[in-house]
Amino acid sequence: MPDRLNRQWTLARRPRGLVQAADFRLVEAPVPTPADGEVLVRNLFLSCDPTQRGWMAMDTYLPAVRLGDVMRGIAGGTVVESRHPAFRHGQLVTGMFGWQEWAIARPGTGSAPTAVPPGVPLETALSILGLTGITAYFGLLEVGRPQPGETVVVSGAAGATGSAVGQIAKLKGCRVIGVAGGAEKCRRLTQELGFDAAIDYRTEDVAARLGALCPEGVDLYFDNVGGEILDAALARLALRGRVVLCGAISRYSDDRVGPGPVNYLNLLTRRGRMEGFIVLDFLPRAAEAVGALAGWLREGKLKDRVDVQQGFEQAPAALARLFTGKNQGKQLVKIGDAP
Amino acid sequence: MPDRLNRQWTLARRPRGLVQAADFRLVEAPVPTPADGEVLVRNLFLSCDPTQRGWMAMDTYLPAVRLGDVMRGIAGGTVVESRHPAFRHGQLVTGMFGWQEWAIARPGTGSAPTAVPPGVPLETALSILGLTGITAYFGLLEVGRPQPGETVVVSGAAGATGSAVGQIAKLKGCRVIGVAGGAEKCRRLTQELGFDAAIDYRTEDVAARLGALCPEGVDLYFDNVGGEILDAALARLALRGRVVLCGAISRYSDDRVGPGPVNYLNLLTRRGRMEGFIVLDFLPRAAEAVGALAGWLREGKLKDRVDVQQGFEQAPAALARLFTGKNQGKQLVKIGDAP
Repeated sequence: MPDRLNRQWTLARRPRGLVQAADFRLVEAPVPTPADGEVLVRNLFLSCDPTQRGWMAMDTYLPAVRLGDVMRGIAGGTVVESRHPAFRHGQLVTGMFGWQEWAIARPGTGSAPTAVPPGVPLETALSILGLTGITAYFGLLEVGRPQPGETVVVSGAAGATGSAVGQIAKLKGCRVIGVAGGAEKCRRLTQELGFDAAIDYRTEDVAARLGALCPEGVDLYFDNVGGEILDAALARLALRGRVVLCGAISRYSDDRVGPGPVNYLNLLTRRGRMEGFIVLDFLPRAAEAVGALAGWLREGKLKDRVDVQQGFEQAPAALARLFTGKNQGKQLVKIGDAP
Repeated sequence: MPDRLNRQWTLARRPRGLVQAADFRLVEAPVPTPADGEVLVRNLFLSCDPTQRGWMAMDTYLPAVRLGDVMRGIAGGTVVESRHPAFRHGQLVTGMFGWQEWAIARPGTGSAPTAVPPGVPLETALSILGLTGITAYFGLLEVGRPQPGETVVVSGAAGATGSAVGQIAKLKGCRVIGVAGGAEKCRRLTQELGFDAAIDYRTEDVAARLGALCPEGVDLYFDNVGGEILDAALARLALRGRVVLCGAISRYSDDRVGPGPVNYLNLLTRRGRMEGFIVLDFLPRAAEAVGALAGWLREGKLKDRVDVQQGFEQAPAALARLFTGKNQGKQLVKIGDAP
C-alpha cells in the first residue's frame, strides 16, 4: 500500500513532570512492507500503561525509547498482510507494535504478534486477557502468594491491574481492601467488583483506615502507587507480610527521586518481604494465566472494564489520564476499525 | 546465698540519641533462690548487641524493657545451684539472663539456659556459636540464599554478625565485599578474614566503590546498618538481587525516623527481594547452625573475634561502643570468674 501513510507518535523529548502532548510528535511515514517471516498489522487500539512514562524518561528494565523513535507501546490490530505461515489475513493480534497505525510484527522478536483467541474482543485481549491481566495474575499469585483468609490490600485498585488483582484475590479466598482515588471508584470496587472495603486516598487518612480495617495487619500489599500509601501499608504489615512491587505511579511524574519508604524496617521486625517483578519475565507462562483468567471471565467471576478514548491523535492525552487518575479501568485508544 | 547481693543494671529511662550510662541504674537486690525446675546462674559475661537499643526504646519484635526492670540481654555463666535434672552445678550455660550478676534460668521459658558444649569457651558460645553466629548463618543462607560465584556485600562487616556472614559466604563460594568503618577494620577483613575487598565508609564513596568493585551488580546485600549504605547497595543491585535486612545500626540512635531507601524501586526493575528476619524464629533449628559453625571453627575455616570489656559497671559503656563503631568483633563484658 505505497499510496497510504502511516501516522506515528514519536518521542520528541524526555518528559518532565506529568506526561504532555508536547513530549510527542505526530509524524507520517510510508506504510511498511513485510519481509519474509513478518506480518503487517493495522493497529486498531493502543494500550496506555503507566510504565510507558519510565520508558520515555530513562533506561529501566528496558532501554529508554530513543528521541525520534516511534513511542513504544502495546497495541492490538488486524493482520493485513502475512508472510508468516502461522498468521493469516484478518486475524486479530496484539503485541509491542508501538504507537503507530501500521506496524511490522515479527514472530520471535520483541515485536512478536500474539494471536487473539476466537471470540475474544481486541479490547479484552489488551486488558484482562493481555499483559494487564497476566501482570495481576503472576504478581499476586507467584510473587505475593496469598493464602485463603489473608487480608490483601491493593493500591491503584480501580485501575486495570489493581482491579484484576483484587478480584483474583477474592477468588482465592482472601479479604480484599482497595485503595483508590474518588468516591465513584471506591463505590465500584465494593459494589461491582466484590472488594470487602475501599479507601479513598483523596479524602481519607489511609494509614488510619488501614489500621481500622486490618486490626490483625496487612498480610499482602500489592503496590501500584508507592509513596505515602506504601508507607501506610508497611506501617500495618502483619507478621510475615509481603509487599509486591508492581509500580509506583505516584512517583513517576516527579522529576526528583522521591523519598523512600521510611517504614521499611518493619520488614525486619515483622519478618516481611518486599519483592518486585516485571511481567515480561512471566511471558513464557502466559498461557497459564490467560487460561485461568479466560475461565473466570466466562464464568462471570471476573469483570473487565476498559476506558476507550477515540482517535489516534488522542494517544498522548489518554496516557496522561493515567497520572491524574482520570481513567476508569484499562485505558485504551481506539485508532481505527477493522478494514 | 542470702548474705550476698545481686548487682543489676535496670533501665532508668528510654534512650535518646546514643545510649548513655544515665539510661541505666545500678541497683542491688538479694541473690534469688531457684524454685523447682529452675537453676541459679552466676553470670560471667554479658553480651552487647545492637538490637538492645531497640528493646530499651520501644516495642519492636519484643516488648520494650519496662522502666525499672533489669536490662534485657544475653549472658553466659555457670550453674551454681540446679533444681532441674538436665543441669548440674558448674555447668556453663548461656541465655537471656539479663544484665545482672545472678539470674534464675528456667528451661522452657524465655530465660531458658542453653548448655555450652564441652571444650567451648563461654566467649565463643556467646559469639560465633551463639545467637550472633546463628543470626549470620540463617540470615545469609536461608533468607539470602547465596549461590557460588555470586557477589555478596556485607555492611557492619567487621562486627560480630557481619564478619561471620562474610566468612560463611566465602565458604559457600561467593565473592565477598565488606563495608566497615576505618582502615584497621578494613585491613582485618581482607587480610585476616579472607574478604575479597573492603570499603571504608568513613573515607570512601561507598556507592562509587561498589560500582567499581561490582561491575555486574550486587547479588546479595546483607544489611546491618541501613541508611546511605543500604541505598548504595540498592543502586547497584543485580538482576534478582536480594537484600537481607538484619539490622540498621545507623538509624538506631536517631530519635526521628530516618529517611527510607530512595532506591527501593530498583527492587522492581531488577526483580529484587528485600526481606527481614529475626533470629529467634530460627531457634528451633539452632543445632543445625551451631553444628556447621563449630565444624568450620574446628577446621580453622572460621575466625571468631571477641572484644571484652572488664567489669560489671562497664556494661552501659560497652553497649555504647557498638554505636560509635569502637568494637572489634563481638562486644562482651566480663563480669566475674567461675567461682
